[in-house]
Amino acid sequence: MTNMSPDEFRHYGYRVVDWIADYWKHLESLPVAPRVEPGDILRRLPAHPPEQGESFDAVLSDLDELLVPGLLHWQHPRFFGYFPANSSPPAVLADLLCSGLGVQGMLWVTSPACTELEQRVLDWLAQALGLPERFRLAGPGGGVIQDTASSSVILAVLAALHRASAGRVRRDGVTPGRYVCYVTAETHSAVTKAAVITGLGEQAIRQVPTRPGEQAMDLTQLRGLVTADLVAGHTSLLAVATVGTTSTCAVDPVPGMGALCREHGIWLHVDAAYAGVAAVCPELRWLHDGVAEFADSYCTNPHKWLLTNFDCDTFWVADRAALTGALSILPEYLRNEASESGQVTDYRDWQIPLGRRFRALKLWAVLRCYGLAGLREHIRRGIEHAQHVARWITADERFELTTPQRLSLVCFRLRAANQANLDLLARVNATGITFLTHTKIDERVSLRFAAGGTHTELHHVEQAWRCVQQQAATLLAG
Amino acid sequence: MTNMSPDEFRHYGYRVVDWIADYWKHLESLPVAPRVEPGDILRRLPAHPPEQGESFDAVLSDLDELLVPGLLHWQHPRFFGYFPANSSPPAVLADLLCSGLGVQGMLWVTSPACTELEQRVLDWLAQALGLPERFRLAGPGGGVIQDTASSSVILAVLAALHRASAGRVRRDGVTPGRYVCYVTAETHSAVTKAAVITGLGEQAIRQVPTRPGEQAMDLTQLRGLVTADLVAGHTSLLAVATVGTTSTCAVDPVPGMGALCREHGIWLHVDAAYAGVAAVCPELRWLHDGVAEFADSYCTNPHKWLLTNFDCDTFWVADRAALTGALSILPEYLRNEASESGQVTDYRDWQIPLGRRFRALKLWAVLRCYGLAGLREHIRRGIEHAQHVARWITADERFELTTPQRLSLVCFRLRAANQANLDLLARVNATGITFLTHTKIDERVSLRFAAGGTHTELHHVEQAWRCVQQQAATLLAG
Repeated sequence: MTNMSPDEFRHYGYRVVDWIADYWKHLESLPVAPRVEPGDILRRLPAHPPEQGESFDAVLSDLDELLVPGLLHWQHPRFFGYFPANSSPPAVLADLLCSGLGVQGMLWVTSPACTELEQRVLDWLAQALGLPERFRLAGPGGGVIQDTASSSVILAVLAALHRASAGRVRRDGVTPGRYVCYVTAETHSAVTKAAVITGLGEQAIRQVPTRPGEQAMDLTQLRGLVTADLVAGHTSLLAVATVGTTSTCAVDPVPGMGALCREHGIWLHVDAAYAGVAAVCPELRWLHDGVAEFADSYCTNPHKWLLTNFDCDTFWVADRAALTGALSILPEYLRNEASESGQVTDYRDWQIPLGRRFRALKLWAVLRCYGLAGLREHIRRGIEHAQHVARWITADERFELTTPQRLSLVCFRLRAANQANLDLLARVNATGITFLTHTKIDERVSLRFAAGGTHTELHHVEQAWRCVQQQAATLLAG
Repeated sequence: MTNMSPDEFRHYGYRVVDWIADYWKHLESLPVAPRVEPGDILRRLPAHPPEQGESFDAVLSDLDELLVPGLLHWQHPRFFGYFPANSSPPAVLADLLCSGLGVQGMLWVTSPACTELEQRVLDWLAQALGLPERFRLAGPGGGVIQDTASSSVILAVLAALHRASAGRVRRDGVTPGRYVCYVTAETHSAVTKAAVITGLGEQAIRQVPTRPGEQAMDLTQLRGLVTADLVAGHTSLLAVATVGTTSTCAVDPVPGMGALCREHGIWLHVDAAYAGVAAVCPELRWLHDGVAEFADSYCTNPHKWLLTNFDCDTFWVADRAALTGALSILPEYLRNEASESGQVTDYRDWQIPLGRRFRALKLWAVLRCYGLAGLREHIRRGIEHAQHVARWITADERFELTTPQRLSLVCFRLRAANQANLDLLARVNATGITFLTHTKIDERVSLRFAAGGTHTELHHVEQAWRCVQQQAATLLAG
């Protein structure tokens, strides 16, 4: 085949737009989770690529027949697993523009508008979330879009190492056993993965106990570990404060951690991947207590609960020099006047890869099309749905909340053994009516109900809860 | 604003499809490079996000007025800078489907079709490029889509460290000064960045000299350095063989490097980011000489020269256990039966981030819609264009080739001082007619003409070359 002409593209473009509009319209009628065994889809796909080109119709037809039945439908209005991975019409449209433009944002000069829109939009979001002046355009720091919060914490580690070693680590490598990082058992596994990737190793991770019955870091324990490391001659490198942990949406005590970090020169990274975007609501601005005073870096994921398609993690640093100092390398083939003038931002020095998509477009479209008012409405709806679920659980004596309902997340369990709870989860998910996931809290299995989907309305939440109740009844009768 | 309804999405979806079709149709009439100063676009974007939502029309109108004039048009048929960043209609359409579906591929269970299509498509591509059996589905290795070749080389370093240390590095961290990596001055800067990110530091990089007058690694020099490191008690960790260097498309001697690596237990990573995809043509299969016998890992970028929108780097390992052993961490909230059965692939353990888009869709659509025959035609057209340019340069005594024309890349210079060549580049790019970039070869500035754009035809190449000739004439006339 030669290239599709622009008019053929128009034809198939309309068809794909129709396909998506219909998919969203009819999502409710699909089972949320697929019924497939490992290898089912692989076996149905041909073993060899075609020699001659086929029409895009063939792609669409196989999408319907082979692939859709093998998808877990994250955009389904009754999907309540993990955390939401919000998509939205403006984000999808803007991401399509990004694909069509096909520009590269690695350097300012490789598409100036790509860099400058990102700078502006990150500044907008920093304002919207009440993030401090020093993260913003006029300050010494700045914001950038990453793929995920996992990458953000790697960058935080690298910038912290650069600062702590006055640049030596970049040249000489890390010294094993010297640097330590503070987390809790509830901190995202990405921090341990970051320690492994950056060469610190798992041994660099200090797991600070949480306060009894809570899932947030115990400050007294943190102080004790930092003091012990000081005595042992270790360098306390970085502490991760989570605002909204993955399991239970717990919030670490950022102000207390921050004060301790400042005292000891520890880099404070705030991982607000899920919950940070909720601070767009003035009544939830407390989520960022301590960030303005103490955070060296911070991230939150509009691709979770802020209507912006994956991937879009927004990451800010208070001092961009630590980050770019850790990462900047300039080969001849990338040299250009604008970079050498020092007047531009080259985002390749703010991230792990070199190349980058024009991801700012989708975040810009979301902020423009929803406005701050629309974003607040979306966040509040997710929380309201979770409040309903929490009330229903409290009213049903077979169940109990395992943590207080926090933002759009509800953790609960059947008053029964762990295995019964896992069985309940499997039965619920097998119905196709809804989809939940689980965690463990103090060794007890808990189910997680994470509201906040783009298309979720109260009746979807009700249906899902009724499904849980029915499956519990069958299980308990069994 | 509340959400756009599916029908409103349809309306704006058609408009965006039209916008892209028109953009592609009229790209030729736009200057390739923008005429903007640092800050021009930033200043024209409002300082604050809107309180109330706006219509998507406002986004489209600002895109036209504020952003498009600030873009370097990578899809322009007369863009010959850097390397091509191919986009194509099937890839754009499939990426739109990916956005609309909004599923997560981090685990098999988070959308089985997402993982299994990727496995199948990577196997197709491995066959198409003549990559060895052990990289394929039935073998001990496997393939995965990464964002960029930068991430692939980080993964190669981590897997190599895992193998070389029998898993100890993961727990204890790296030992500085122990591990060394072999590259040349022509190897992509991503390898040094990878050494910095993984904690080895810049000191771990051994720059092996290239053969005089060539830009490929000198095997005798490599052998000498490896021996010296052995004597000094260092561990020779990894060698990077580049197939198609960024500056000049030089090809390192993979078979010779491979034999030496095998002898010393060194991990051989083959970085074929730009050139590897050309092996879809049987007459270029030699590009992969030595890969089948010796490569531990390999990557190439369909997002450069194989019609698949950024980001799509395809990465294979010969032994997947080294990679997943280096990276796998399983918190409770991600546990599931399928993963524990060992019967599925969880791609989060094959990459740096946790979350992942359904990127296999766009590569699948490209392979389906072009077929192998269409892909070969595309590769051959890019090479043919470069051959024309090389002939024109040879025929014009004011110019000289600085390396032989290789694949779709031509490096050349005005027979004049470095500064005159930089001036020529600036003048050419200021015309808006075409866009080239530069490099240095043995301290001499060379201009790079990288053909291979999706929409480029011979007359575009001719126009671009005439522009270079005219600007040279003006410059030389003084």
